[in-house]
Order: sequence, then structure tokens, then C-alpha cells
Amino acid sequence: MKIICSKSNLLKCLNISLRAVPVRTTMSILECVLIDASSSVIRFISNDMELGIETIVTGEIKEKGIVALNAKIFSDIIRKLPENDVVIQTDADYRTLITCERSKFHIPGHSGDDFSFLPIIDRDNCLTITQFSLKNMIQATNFSILANDNNPLMTGELFEIRNNNLRLASLDGHRISIRMMHLSGEYPDTKVIVPGKTLNEVSKILSGEIEDTVRIYFTKNHILFELPDTIILSRLIEGEYFRIDQMITFDYETKVTINRKMLLDCLDRSTLLIKESDKKPLIFHIQDDMIDISLISAIGAMTEEIEIEKEGKDITIGYNPRFLIEALRVIDDEEVNLYFVNPKAPCYIRNEDNSYIYLILPININQG
Amino acid sequence: MKIICSKSNLLKCLNISLRAVPVRTTMSILECVLIDASSSVIRFISNDMELGIETIVTGEIKEKGIVALNAKIFSDIIRKLPENDVVIQTDADYRTLITCERSKFHIPGHSGDDFSFLPIIDRDNCLTITQFSLKNMIQATNFSILANDNNPLMTGELFEIRNNNLRLASLDGHRISIRMMHLSGEYPDTKVIVPGKTLNEVSKILSGEIEDTVRIYFTKNHILFELPDTIILSRLIEGEYFRIDQMITFDYETKVTINRKMLLDCLDRSTLLIKESDKKPLIFHIQDDMIDISLISAIGAMTEEIEIEKEGKDITIGYNPRFLIEALRVIDDEEVNLYFVNPKAPCYIRNEDNSYIYLILPININQG
Repeated sequence: MKIICSKSNLLKCLNISLRAVPVRTTMSILECVLIDASSSVIRFISNDMELGIETIVTGEIKEKGIVALNAKIFSDIIRKLPENDVVIQTDADYRTLITCERSKFHIPGHSGDDFSFLPIIDRDNCLTITQFSLKNMIQATNFSILANDNNPLMTGELFEIRNNNLRLASLDGHRISIRMMHLSGEYPDTKVIVPGKTLNEVSKILSGEIEDTVRIYFTKNHILFELPDTIILSRLIEGEYFRIDQMITFDYETKVTINRKMLLDCLDRSTLLIKESDKKPLIFHIQDDMIDISLISAIGAMTEEIEIEKEGKDITIGYNPRFLIEALRVIDDEEVNLYFVNPKAPCYIRNEDNSYIYLILPININQG
Repeated sequence: MKIICSKSNLLKCLNISLRAVPVRTTMSILECVLIDASSSVIRFISNDMELGIETIVTGEIKEKGIVALNAKIFSDIIRKLPENDVVIQTDADYRTLITCERSKFHIPGHSGDDFSFLPIIDRDNCLTITQFSLKNMIQATNFSILANDNNPLMTGELFEIRNNNLRLASLDGHRISIRMMHLSGEYPDTKVIVPGKTLNEVSKILSGEIEDTVRIYFTKNHILFELPDTIILSRLIEGEYFRIDQMITFDYETKVTINRKMLLDCLDRSTLLIKESDKKPLIFHIQDDMIDISLISAIGAMTEEIEIEKEGKDITIGYNPRFLIEALRVIDDEEVNLYFVNPKAPCYIRNEDNSYIYLILPININQG
């Protein structure tokens, strides 16, 4: 195999491929990126057996072939080369010579025989949305999954089409995060559970531009994201997702409208006084047109008042500030609405059309 | 005590003070910054018993007093406050209230009774240079000290005035780094050993501007750096420094002139193939008007040629690339001169007037 690509093209595609290369593994072939120049285009393929990525690299094929290279070493070398054309050339034993200007690197390569190519997926049942929307929806829900849990459902996100609405949801036992968008067009109802790690990697590959689109295909066991030059294929998590609709209520006793930035800054300050080992609740004292936020810990005490618009009863309720912070950070609105029922029931941050709903459980104040 | 300062002033001075607050200590008073508002100015004082810093904070004293506050908690709070005036107020028990806009923090404070104030130093024997020069000289020598060593001399830097030249030097057993500048004015000869950590902190506090000056005072046991609003006082290391003049020779068999950036980029690439556990030498093969740089390791092999101007014999010699990289990074010249004697003798990177000299020991090629 002999190919010529610019350093910048190689690096752009390697940065995408690396997202499906596991950091630690016992199978050294999984640590490889496969360079497939056996047809008329150059493809990089990486696959950690849960997530697989195939991306097309702009370049010239001088001699067709395939080689698997250790992804980390290969990308480290490319990253440090001068900004110029790079020649990648293999011999019969897959020994690989990487040349750029006067710099020459020799690294060992492997045949593609042991490499796990991505399975072929039936591409019907397609959803097309903007990369901007998908990136946004993932980032606004992906923080409330559990990375490692006995219950695999909690490591995944609900990815659901119902009544031509797309809904992403995640939960971790303390909170539920839900984003919804209306789809233009008619789509069959679909409900799958996607690994949270997959969605996190997908969100980083997505451009975030409104003019770029992504096509999403569903099968029984897989979800496929098709971008202009890249496809990302992930296994699904098996099982029935939690019945989140039954967990959510739209009744409330108190509705508070507050400036998001002011609340977020105040919550952020309060975390200074909280140690990992000593989780004191942040106390919200909502009275008339004022919210008084206070915390007393071993380190010190803080108190701050913020003006609000209030509808309904006064209430005093305790929270872990981190859960509120993470939800407020992914909301764009200048003002947010908080809904409370009683000091033991969850609070909701949601907007009028329910395009976002964040449910957060309180902490018993008396335990603090 | 009651003082009012802007958040930005407080933060600027705290960032300076924190450089003399130890990360881990058994004496909690050392983790404090002392706010001394007992006279007409507000001073922050911090002291880790080796290094002490006193800096003046612009602000208003409403009520004179002194309080010692945990430096980390205090600075974390100030950092997160809104950009506005901050009121710091203590009661009779040194409990401290920090107020900014609607945000109120209460933290415990301590009396200054246990605090180690900086000793009073005789200020004669003063050297005045630009902050630019001092910062430069420190950063260009400070990398080749050892942080922890059985020999305390190796954790320090030589700080010497001789024949109206200021010379800073450090060594770590593999290399010697020397910077020299001519002083305008007459100064008595002085020779002290300053802790490397002190100089590192001093270099970060110095502005690096040519128009700013620093006054340096020497005593038997201390060195004092006096900046416009800040004084930094450090203990000296006792003992007689290594006789570096006897270690350096200006004889050579081979002189190579090479583009610094090209050499540095090449060396930087070579480090990709070196693992901590497997230190292979980088081989310089100098022949005619070309240097061939190559390395073979368990990861792979690299080779690169760079054009040079050569004077004297051809030579083949091995190096740890990191030692060359660290010296080349702190040199500003576009071209550098390398001087070699034989494959077992040190190489020198130095300029014509010896304002910089970097001695680096080679690695035996046959061991690789």
C-alpha cells in the first residue's frame, strides 16, 4: 500500500477514529486503526466492539492495500510532522514507512485479517436532523447517565421517536434529564437505548452547525449515524427503559421564575464550601419575591438572596447544588422556571413547551 | 478589621501570595495568608518558612486590624465572586465575613499571633536589573536543577556577581546550564545559592517587561527581591557551589551551526519513540554538511537529515533528546552552535560572547 495525504487531513480523520479506540484492552488489534486503501477511496476504520467508526480521508492512492497501525503511535507521529504531504507506504510484512519532508518513521503494522470490520446494516427507517440539534440534545442530557452501573440501562440514554417528536432522556437515580424536538416529516415510532459513551463520542464528532445534517438509521441491535464523510455505528443496550412518563408530574404548588445566570453563579459559589466527604444540602428558602440560598458546612457558611417572580406557596427545600448546576448549564434561556410540590418531592426545571424537562430529587434538610 | 478592595485587586495579590503557601503542611498557620491592615496600607503576607512574600493590596481600610485566613479557601471564594467591590470584615474572634453584592461568606479566621512575619533584612548591597532580564535568566537555567536530591546544592542555583557580570547556573549531573549578563554599574562580587523553587516562583511573579525593574539585596542567609508593590524573601542554601568553571572547556574538535527550530522539531518528533522504561539514545551522525539524526526503539525507528555548516572533524555521538530539547527551547537565536570534542565528552551549545552555555553529557551509543 502507498498513499499520500496532507498532514492536516490525516490528523482530522485520526482524531475522529481515535474515539472508537479503547484506551486499555487485551486485544492489540483493537488498539489499531485500519487504513483501507483497497478500493478507490482511503478509509480509516476503528472499532472497540461497541462503537465503530469509518471515515474517508482525502488523499491519493499510489498503490492499493490495507494495513492496521497502532492508533496512538500513528496519530502521535502524524501530529508532530511538519505541515505538508505525508507518504504512508507498507511492505509485504506490513512494516510501514511514514515520510514527510526529510523526516522518516518506520513502525510495525499488521494485516487487516484479525480486524473487526463494521457489520453491514440495512439502511431503511432513516431520520435526518441537523448536526446542531443532535449535538445540542446529547450534550443537554448526557451528563445524568452513570458511567458504570450494575444496571446497564442506567449507562444508556433513551432515544425515542413518538408522534413525530424526537426525545432523548437519561437518569441516574437522583435526576432525570429530558430533551424533546419536533420533527418535520412523518416517522414511524421507534424506541432504543443507546450507550451513553457512544452518544458522548458522537456529540464530539458532530460539527454543531445548522447547515450540516446527520442521517440516523435504526436496526434491532444497532444505531447508525451517517455524516457526509463518516459513519458511526453503535450497539444498542438491550432491555426495556424506565417508564419516565410515569415518574413525571406537571402539578405544582410553587412556581419560581429566576434569572438563570444569577442562580448558576450563586450555586457555583456554594460548591466551594462542600467537600466530597461532607455533602451538606444547599437550602432554598423561597418567600414572597425572594429566594434565599444558604449553606453551612465545616469550611464556612454562605448566604445569598436573589429576586424572583413567584406563583403559589412559600417553600423551604434542600438540594445538592451540582445537580442543579449541571441542568442550568445546558439551558440557553435567560430566565428559567422552577416548579416545586413539597420539600420531599422532586423539583422540575422546564419550559412551556416541555422541550426540556429536568427533574431533580431534593435532599432531606433535617439530615444535614 | 474592615477593608474594601476590588475583586480584581484581591485576586491579583492573592495569586502572588499563594506562591509562598505550601500545598501540604502540618502547621495550619502556614496555610494562611495574613491580611495586615494595621497601618495605613493593606498587606498580604505569606510564608512557607523558606520563601516569604509581602504584597500591597490597593483598597480602603475602614477599621484597622489583622487576620490570618486559610489561603486556599479565601482565594477560592474571591475567585468566584462577582466583579465588584468586596468587603472583608472580622469580629473579635476573627470570624470573617466576606461580602460582595448580595453574596455573603462566613469563614473562620485566626489571630496573627502564631504567624511567621518576614524577618527584617538590611538593605544595602543592592543590584537593580530589569524584570525582563531576571525572568529570562531564571527560565533559561531553572530546568536543570533537581527538585529533590540528597545533595541540597543540586536543588539550588548559583547566583553570582563577578567582575560586574551577573551569572546564574544550575546542574543536575547530566548537564550544566549557565546564563550571564553584563551589569551596567559597579557591584561588589557576590556568590550565593538560591533554592530553585524560590527562583521558579520569583520568575512567575516578575512581569517580564523591560521597563519594570527589580532590586535584589543579599545578606548572609537571605536574598530579597523588591518589586514595586511586592517583596519576596528567600533563605539561601548553605555550602560551596560546584566549581563549574573547572568543568567547562572551550576547546573543540567539531563545530556545527544549525537552524534551531529545525533541530528542535526533529528532536521533539524523536521523543515519540522513547518510553520511560527504555531510554534509547538518539544518534547524531555528523558528516560533511549534513547531520543525520536517528533512533531505533521497541516502538519503531526514525531518521531525519538536516543541513549544517561544519568546522572540524566528522563525529557520531548519542544523546538523550530531552536534555537538548530543554536547552534549545530557552534559546532565542535562529541559528545555534554545537561544539563537540569526542563521543564520550560533553557537547556544548553556546554563543560567541558566552551569554549562554549549555553543557550536555552524551550517552554511550554502544549501550543502546
